[in-house]
Amino acid sequence: MAKSPEVEHPKKAFGWAARDASGILSPFNFSRRATGEKDVTFKILYCGICHSDLHMVKNEWGMTTYPLVPGHEIVGVVTEVGSEVHRFKVGDKVGVGCLVGACRSCNDCSNNLENYCPKSILTYGAVYHDGTTTYGGYSDIMVADEHFVIRIPDNLPLDAGAPLLCAGITVYSPLKFYGLDKPGLHVGVVGLGGLGHAAVKFAKAMGVKITVISTSPNKKTEALEHLGADSFLVSTDQGQIQAALGTLDGIIDTVSAVHPLLPLIGLLKSHGKLIMVGAPEKPLQLPIFPILLGRKIVGGSCIGGLKETQEMIDFAAKHNISADIEVIPIDYVNAAMERLVKADVRYRFVIDIGNTLKLSS
Amino acid sequence: MAKSPEVEHPKKAFGWAARDASGILSPFNFSRRATGEKDVTFKILYCGICHSDLHMVKNEWGMTTYPLVPGHEIVGVVTEVGSEVHRFKVGDKVGVGCLVGACRSCNDCSNNLENYCPKSILTYGAVYHDGTTTYGGYSDIMVADEHFVIRIPDNLPLDAGAPLLCAGITVYSPLKFYGLDKPGLHVGVVGLGGLGHAAVKFAKAMGVKITVISTSPNKKTEALEHLGADSFLVSTDQGQIQAALGTLDGIIDTVSAVHPLLPLIGLLKSHGKLIMVGAPEKPLQLPIFPILLGRKIVGGSCIGGLKETQEMIDFAAKHNISADIEVIPIDYVNAAMERLVKADVRYRFVIDIGNTLKLSS
Repeated sequence: MAKSPEVEHPKKAFGWAARDASGILSPFNFSRRATGEKDVTFKILYCGICHSDLHMVKNEWGMTTYPLVPGHEIVGVVTEVGSEVHRFKVGDKVGVGCLVGACRSCNDCSNNLENYCPKSILTYGAVYHDGTTTYGGYSDIMVADEHFVIRIPDNLPLDAGAPLLCAGITVYSPLKFYGLDKPGLHVGVVGLGGLGHAAVKFAKAMGVKITVISTSPNKKTEALEHLGADSFLVSTDQGQIQAALGTLDGIIDTVSAVHPLLPLIGLLKSHGKLIMVGAPEKPLQLPIFPILLGRKIVGGSCIGGLKETQEMIDFAAKHNISADIEVIPIDYVNAAMERLVKADVRYRFVIDIGNTLKLSS
Repeated sequence: MAKSPEVEHPKKAFGWAARDASGILSPFNFSRRATGEKDVTFKILYCGICHSDLHMVKNEWGMTTYPLVPGHEIVGVVTEVGSEVHRFKVGDKVGVGCLVGACRSCNDCSNNLENYCPKSILTYGAVYHDGTTTYGGYSDIMVADEHFVIRIPDNLPLDAGAPLLCAGITVYSPLKFYGLDKPGLHVGVVGLGGLGHAAVKFAKAMGVKITVISTSPNKKTEALEHLGADSFLVSTDQGQIQAALGTLDGIIDTVSAVHPLLPLIGLLKSHGKLIMVGAPEKPLQLPIFPILLGRKIVGGSCIGGLKETQEMIDFAAKHNISADIEVIPIDYVNAAMERLVKADVRYRFVIDIGNTLKLSS
């Protein structure tokens, strides 16, 4: 019979877990494996709250096992390294994103695309190589294979840098892969949330002209004045959409609610690319004529590989890109989840693990 | 007031036209312009019947003006050339496909992509630069700007070569553009009609492994034994689809009826490409999760530019590729249209214009 989470490994760990589909998080004692030869152990200081954490704690994707310790935007400071670890030493600032394992031998792994490996292991709620459950960053310590550990440059703030490990790479990777990172191109960003605001920042730093597309007219000032977008379209305003038809080289669509694709496809120039990074649960309506007549594509993208994640973090540090965040204590996490349902955050909650997660809480 | 079709131009012409949305074709006297400086005039010998001719004669796309002379898979022999024509001379074998004009100055035209020029002029049922209506190849003579005229190599049969000018380029262009033309790749072809059978032939000649995907189990023998496909899947057979998940680098989808995309997306490997060349009138259901998780794309493609059309014809001649056809006399054209509705043709009707279209008919 499997051992309980508290005693299955030698290293005591403490975090907050969801126990059932209510999604309510509460204190939880568990354990982490001892630092293996290739492992990096680090004290967690901050962890971002990703929208997928919300889906997972409530089992909205039907794949959750409880108890679930969420969190895959994890940063901290190294406390121990295994004998075979060469890239990190005690005291280094590091992070872990969405993945902690992969097969390391398939075609995708060989091409630094561990994120598309069929055997990739998610940072929480998955089964690790040793058969035990993975637990995420709403907790005090992390143990991870160094291949899945990212170095955080000194000038990147740990709290505002944490969300880049998921939200950042999710938008950076498609901008690069689909060739939307070239100076002078004109790219639309649909949805101004955690992903969208990161997309605006990265694309701007790449020299790309940005149009933010949103259902909320009241986000215009924020988009233009605070985030530096070049223009703003209200997606439900037919006049605005008509006037902008055929002007965009690409679009990064971060919206995870069901929404119409036709106006977005219309905004693309011929040969333009509509890239989905949000994940609506139901299929969307895809009109075929417009994609034929303009040789347009609708593509997908899902986070990024480890090599590219390090590249993204280094790019962010170089260009002073970090997330706009609201730092919260762990005790506020359930309230934060409720606000996240209403998109009431600009733009990412980050839990101050180091200062607020106490064994006595 | 506009002159009648019969007298608006100096050159007498004769063909068959649809007069109303019944789509019934009947003999029709009209006229063609005099051979201009850059024009090539040719006697039409054969014209293929494209499925879009059927949509157009019945005004199913809502853009038809009557009388309509269809036909955009047109081949024949040059009878006259303008003083500025350098590429063709009297007696040459030539063809005209879907386009007879474009702006020649936009970005797409500058990149030999006249097919995506917003001002491209269709071979029939469109308005030419001089304000007159264009008439297609169900007729005795053609006058076209040499830029839009294709040279037919001597070893390509005129009758079986004619359908390549639309069906051929429609599948050749996406195979090239989306990089599905590399030896050793594995590509699916959905639908075994005029487009699909051409796709199999071109892809095979490129060294690509081909799986034909069809709703009709009875097309298996034809696909494997006659066309040389490597394997065959019945798209409604869950067991066959399940067994083939993740095996294809790309898919050319030629089906113009509404159909499910989910199984096709599932057949793709990660980073695979589902390319639509059929044109369903209603939107299709696009599931987003699978395109995210495998970084897959759904793309479109619409015929090809003139340079690429010549390249395709030369490739076909070199590799002995032509369409499988049923040659019919012009008097049979209405019966052929009825059979086309039922997909009762292997795989393209071609009208023997030279021998059967007579002024007295």
